[in-house]
Amino acid sequence: MRFKVAHFTEIKAAKVEEPGYKDIQVKWLITKDEGAKNFAMRYFEVKPKGHSAHHSHIWEHEVFILDGHCLVECGDQEKRVGPGYAIFIPPNIPHSFRNVGDKTLKFLCLIPYEK
Amino acid sequence: MRFKVAHFTEIKAAKVEEPGYKDIQVKWLITKDEGAKNFAMRYFEVKPKGHSAHHSHIWEHEVFILDGHCLVECGDQEKRVGPGYAIFIPPNIPHSFRNVGDKTLKFLCLIPYEK
Repeated sequence: MRFKVAHFTEIKAAKVEEPGYKDIQVKWLITKDEGAKNFAMRYFEVKPKGHSAHHSHIWEHEVFILDGHCLVECGDQEKRVGPGYAIFIPPNIPHSFRNVGDKTLKFLCLIPYEK
Repeated sequence: MRFKVAHFTEIKAAKVEEPGYKDIQVKWLITKDEGAKNFAMRYFEVKPKGHSAHHSHIWEHEVFILDGHCLVECGDQEKRVGPGYAIFIPPNIPHSFRNVGDKTLKFLCLIPYEK
């Protein structure tokens, strides 16, 4: 377990290659590797017209929009959000994130580690 | 447990009044109230020359700097950071955050809930 300080540009990006995802990359900023046993901080970039899958899982998301414009779908609701929005996606609700702007969408998305 | 979407400007700020804190306010963006059982997302603003206490606790911090310049002390280390830096503060290490710039320091700081 260690003090970690890293600029997001120092962290290697990985393209999300799973079915239903388009033009999204992820950087794992804070993880178990540093001793973050409870939750992980991830940074996403989505190109214009890019999107996540519409998917569901047993863990929640805590999201903060840094730049760009996003359509968030969650259950039967949808919201358009921009920089400065915080979003809570409860467990087991189908949801997706879509870049509906003309520049790169950037957001943090944190998830718990299983206990 | 519910889908929550809120801009940080919609959330009420509370001044941190504890000993050792100067010119810091906090907004709790995502909490247990929405069903976030595992961790909370908090947004801090610190005025120039403002700072947290130099303090220690059993939980970790996951921090992301949104704007301004911060001196982070953790154990026997210190780092100057600006927008785009992610910081992991391990449990039980004395640490502090200090605005060393000439504009408001803004950052997210997430903490686990006790299990």
